[in-house]
Amino acid sequence: MSENKTIVRWHRPSVSRSRGCVVWFTGLSGSGKSTVANRVDELLAERQVSAFVLDGDNVRHGLNASPEILSRNHSEEFANRFGLTFAPLDREENIRRIACVGELFATAGLIALTAFVSPYRRDRELARQVISGQGAADDFIEVFVDTPLEVCEQRDPKGLYKKARAGEIKNFTGIDDPYEPPLKPEIHLAGGSQSIDELAAAVISYLQQRGKLTA
Amino acid sequence: MSENKTIVRWHRPSVSRSRGCVVWFTGLSGSGKSTVANRVDELLAERQVSAFVLDGDNVRHGLNASPEILSRNHSEEFANRFGLTFAPLDREENIRRIACVGELFATAGLIALTAFVSPYRRDRELARQVISGQGAADDFIEVFVDTPLEVCEQRDPKGLYKKARAGEIKNFTGIDDPYEPPLKPEIHLAGGSQSIDELAAAVISYLQQRGKLTA
Repeated sequence: MSENKTIVRWHRPSVSRSRGCVVWFTGLSGSGKSTVANRVDELLAERQVSAFVLDGDNVRHGLNASPEILSRNHSEEFANRFGLTFAPLDREENIRRIACVGELFATAGLIALTAFVSPYRRDRELARQVISGQGAADDFIEVFVDTPLEVCEQRDPKGLYKKARAGEIKNFTGIDDPYEPPLKPEIHLAGGSQSIDELAAAVISYLQQRGKLTA
Repeated sequence: MSENKTIVRWHRPSVSRSRGCVVWFTGLSGSGKSTVANRVDELLAERQVSAFVLDGDNVRHGLNASPEILSRNHSEEFANRFGLTFAPLDREENIRRIACVGELFATAGLIALTAFVSPYRRDRELARQVISGQGAADDFIEVFVDTPLEVCEQRDPKGLYKKARAGEIKNFTGIDDPYEPPLKPEIHLAGGSQSIDELAAAVISYLQQRGKLTA
C-alpha cells in the first residue's frame, strides 16, 4: 500500500513557502500562549506562510476530547479508555498526541504553533524527540511564555485560578500542581512586561533568523 | 487563553490556494488507496495546492502507535491503555483520531488525503460527522477504491493475505473480518481495471468540479 512515499517536506517550498516546524509555547494558564500564538499566526498569514494554531479550542473537543464528549458517539467503555481527563497518564497522552499532530503538520510544510500549558519537562522533551528526531534538530522551537503567576492569576481569563483557589479544580498548574520551567528554551518571552505585538515579533524574528521563513 | 480566535479556513486562500477538505480513501488492503492518494498528492503539488497524505506509514509509528512502540518511552500501563492494536475498540479509536487530524488539516486549508482500510460503515460515518459537521457538508469526500478481493490478494504487496490465509494474522479484513462497502461514496473507483493515473485523475476532476481547487 505504500510503494509511493509521501512527498517529504523539503519538496514543498513552492506550496507552503516555508520549511515546516513546530513552535511549542509553554507556560502557565493565562500567561498568553494562545494569544501570542494567534498573533504569530496572523503575522505569518500576512507573509503567505502556512501556519496553524493547535490549542485547547480545537483539540479538546476532538482529538483529545474528554470521556463525557466521547460518550456521545461511543460506548462508555470506549469513552473511559480513550477520553482524556487531567489525571497524570491522561496529561501525558494529551501532550503526546499534540506532539504527533504537530510533527505531521511540520512534515506537511506548515509552521505548527502549539499552545498548551505542558507543565512537565519530561513530556516536553518527549515532544522534542518526536518532532526533532531523524536529523531535524531545529524543527522543535520551545517558547517559554514566562509570565509571573501573580499576573496570570490577576488576568484569570477563564476564572480557573479562582476555582482552583476555592478547591473546585484540583491539580491546577501553579496552584497545587507544579510547573517545571524550560531550562534552555529556544525563545524566552517576558510575558508580563511586553505587549502581545512585541512578544509575537520576537518569535517571528527568531523564525526568520533560523531560515524558517523563505518569503 | 483564547481571546483571539484562530483564523478560519476561508481567510486562507492566498496561502493554501485551496479550501481545505478531507478525501477519505477506503478499500481492502492492497486495493491501491495509498498509491492513488500519493499520486493525487503529487498532482496537487504540481498545481501549488497544499495537500498531505495520512496513511499507516506516518500514523502507525506516531499518533496511533502500538503498545509495543509506546512502551519504549512510556510506562507499560500507559502503553497498554493508549497504544492501539487491531481489536475492535482500538480500530474505532484509530479511525477517530485520523478523522480528527484530517479535520484539523482541512481547517488549516489543506486537502488531507487519508488512506486507511476503514472497513466499518459506522466508523466512516462518524468520521464524516467530525469533518463535515458545522455546515461544511462537502468537506468529507469518501472515495471507495473498489478493487476485487482476488486482485488485492494476488497483489498482496505486504504479504498480509498470505499470512491471514495461514492464520498468522487474525481478523484480517476481507478474509475473516468484514469489509462494509460505502453505500453512497462521493467517488467510486474501479481499482482493478484502471491505471493509477486514471484513478488519480478521477479524484482531481471531482475536486475541481466541487471548487476545491482554486488554482
